[in-house]
Amino acid sequence: MPKQALILGGGFAGLAAARALQGAPCTVTLVDHNNYHLFQPLLYQVATGELQAEAIATPLRGLLDPSGIGFRLGRVLAIDPDARRVHLAEGAALSYDYLIIALGSVTNFFGQTELARHAFDLKGVDLAERTRSRILYAFERATSCTDASERAAWLTFVVAGGGATGVEFTTALLELIATLMRDRYPLLRQTPPRVLLIQGGQALLPGFAPALQEAAAGKIRALHGDILFGTHVTAYDGLIVHSTSADPLQARTLIWTAGIRAHPLTAALPGADPHSGRVATDPLLRITAHPEIFVVGDGLAGRDHALWPQVAPFAIQSGRYAGAAVRAALLGQALPGPFTYRDPGSMVVLGRLDAVCQIDRWRLRTHGHGAWLLWVGVHLYNIIGTRNRLLTLINWAIDYGARGNAVEIIRKC
Amino acid sequence: MPKQALILGGGFAGLAAARALQGAPCTVTLVDHNNYHLFQPLLYQVATGELQAEAIATPLRGLLDPSGIGFRLGRVLAIDPDARRVHLAEGAALSYDYLIIALGSVTNFFGQTELARHAFDLKGVDLAERTRSRILYAFERATSCTDASERAAWLTFVVAGGGATGVEFTTALLELIATLMRDRYPLLRQTPPRVLLIQGGQALLPGFAPALQEAAAGKIRALHGDILFGTHVTAYDGLIVHSTSADPLQARTLIWTAGIRAHPLTAALPGADPHSGRVATDPLLRITAHPEIFVVGDGLAGRDHALWPQVAPFAIQSGRYAGAAVRAALLGQALPGPFTYRDPGSMVVLGRLDAVCQIDRWRLRTHGHGAWLLWVGVHLYNIIGTRNRLLTLINWAIDYGARGNAVEIIRKC
Repeated sequence: MPKQALILGGGFAGLAAARALQGAPCTVTLVDHNNYHLFQPLLYQVATGELQAEAIATPLRGLLDPSGIGFRLGRVLAIDPDARRVHLAEGAALSYDYLIIALGSVTNFFGQTELARHAFDLKGVDLAERTRSRILYAFERATSCTDASERAAWLTFVVAGGGATGVEFTTALLELIATLMRDRYPLLRQTPPRVLLIQGGQALLPGFAPALQEAAAGKIRALHGDILFGTHVTAYDGLIVHSTSADPLQARTLIWTAGIRAHPLTAALPGADPHSGRVATDPLLRITAHPEIFVVGDGLAGRDHALWPQVAPFAIQSGRYAGAAVRAALLGQALPGPFTYRDPGSMVVLGRLDAVCQIDRWRLRTHGHGAWLLWVGVHLYNIIGTRNRLLTLINWAIDYGARGNAVEIIRKC
Repeated sequence: MPKQALILGGGFAGLAAARALQGAPCTVTLVDHNNYHLFQPLLYQVATGELQAEAIATPLRGLLDPSGIGFRLGRVLAIDPDARRVHLAEGAALSYDYLIIALGSVTNFFGQTELARHAFDLKGVDLAERTRSRILYAFERATSCTDASERAAWLTFVVAGGGATGVEFTTALLELIATLMRDRYPLLRQTPPRVLLIQGGQALLPGFAPALQEAAAGKIRALHGDILFGTHVTAYDGLIVHSTSADPLQARTLIWTAGIRAHPLTAALPGADPHSGRVATDPLLRITAHPEIFVVGDGLAGRDHALWPQVAPFAIQSGRYAGAAVRAALLGQALPGPFTYRDPGSMVVLGRLDAVCQIDRWRLRTHGHGAWLLWVGVHLYNIIGTRNRLLTLINWAIDYGARGNAVEIIRKC
């Protein structure tokens, strides 16, 4: 009976682990509740209609070699480390000798259930499409409104959270509004929409150099967006936004990008931090009490009190490392040395033709057209599959070239 | 105060009416509950993953000149012919001097509510995507099944209705299975899926020449599909298909293309047929009791006991006619002569590289590669917008050229 390696999650980390295990002397099964790998760094563009969901979703069966690595569509209900078994919602239980947990993260509403019910977020294809539909629907409702304050509420968009996702989404939304306003809703030229970014800290884009943080804030203001620093949203009922520093504000749409936490199953593992849900491991990314369980990607806590970044390059490197470690164990080889992360740098796009880029090991800090071109190149290169690259390129040609919008379809909201 | 012309529905008929009214001396408003026009003849390809929904959905605001024709997103609740007002679900009421009803048709389950709850159908973007997701999901469930009869039920697909939609969907599904089987689910080569087309009449494609009807049936059999003629589905509970002539059959997926009826609001008009919901009008397409109301497209009954075809060319011609008649009335000109329909012929595609084509006025009856090429040309030409043509072309290049499938994403089912 061959050994069983089980990978939970088909995101960047899980896929990298699966590829590192290709050809290893074991049965490898990757489990995901979606049948596709999602290129999450571009998901905010689905929410603003710049990209079709299909352009960044790639079928997992097409990415995994069917003769080597099995795919199982299923929702994981529970992990039983003592029995070395994973239970699926569909009823089956899968046994393992090695388990790689790559379940990623979920939106963190910090226990605010009313806010969670009414806010829009960007943590999956359906949610991003729902956000896009809501934005377009808000414009439709605003055009047919006869009451001025109701119209203003439909035309007010609040973004909570000024990290990379919040900044990229806000600038894209502002560009979308400028385009839609001009072309589709001539009646609204008299009532300009309002976009307000609410950020807890005193700067956008934590971790970036101050000059780049200021470039991002400057860009948002140049596109007629507002920013509120040092402020937290405290309540939202679908209409009134309450915050720590401003008067209550009427807004029909609140987009929440203010926090993530590890997947609930990761957070239930021994050693998980109660707040972030992230798990501390040994230097080989194994759970101390269960060295046959690896945790990779967003669910991993960090080392020496420093948290790992929850970004795609980290997910890929940690996933690949865990796959290689399992392969070495199966082959009876020496395990690799402690995991180390090589930071390739960070990029955040600021609407059309603008971005900030910080690559510490090259001492590069730049923004503007050059950074945007670099961003386009890196993302097109990293999108998986020729078809998806082509689709993305056509979508962007429409967005940036024709100043249109690739997707304007309202599905549901 | 300018006269008000109101168009209900942004399908082929409503859009043609709006375009014929462009520049007329009145306010024109088109109401639809979707913000897009849908190229319905290709919707079955969304259900089989050959096309992305965005390739055949075009934003209505982009199609209507914003300075001339207004668009209103809304669901029509009721038409009040005496008050000349239309009530929307969103609360507003719209007055009209002329009303063009272009609400199209809905799936007709002939009162079988249990069947309606469990069957899949193709009458809208969401339903077509749900059908695609179900087909892919069925393959996933079948691969992980340990019970042989359960697996067979997941791998049995029943299509009820052998008209154009049923035949096009069935052949596309059979081609999809041949591709998916080979590439994605090697384990299933031992358990071939079963596709069964159930048709009430004694031939497929009513209205086509017998030789073309036989070509369609022959194609389905060549692709390893089964056909049951002279049979009606009588009950379906999500698992067991009961019919008038075969033993009960276990099938997890039933796709219903066996009937349509006029939109409920059309069916509620005076003079509507109680079974089909279609409305008889005067030769100018006006309701006799209310000559300011025109009915166009699928909702129109026919003339001299012959029913009009419920197809795109008829919808376009009748919509254009009604728009021109309203324009003439507004300008105080003589109304046009009685409406006549010029039949451009019919085409039904049979999977990859095959189709049947019948153009009576050219005495053309053909099938095979030539008919398929003609079909590709006609459809690419008629798809609205350069972007959508380009997307469709890329999708088809993947489908037919690379023998892949443009969309393999499971959303929900």
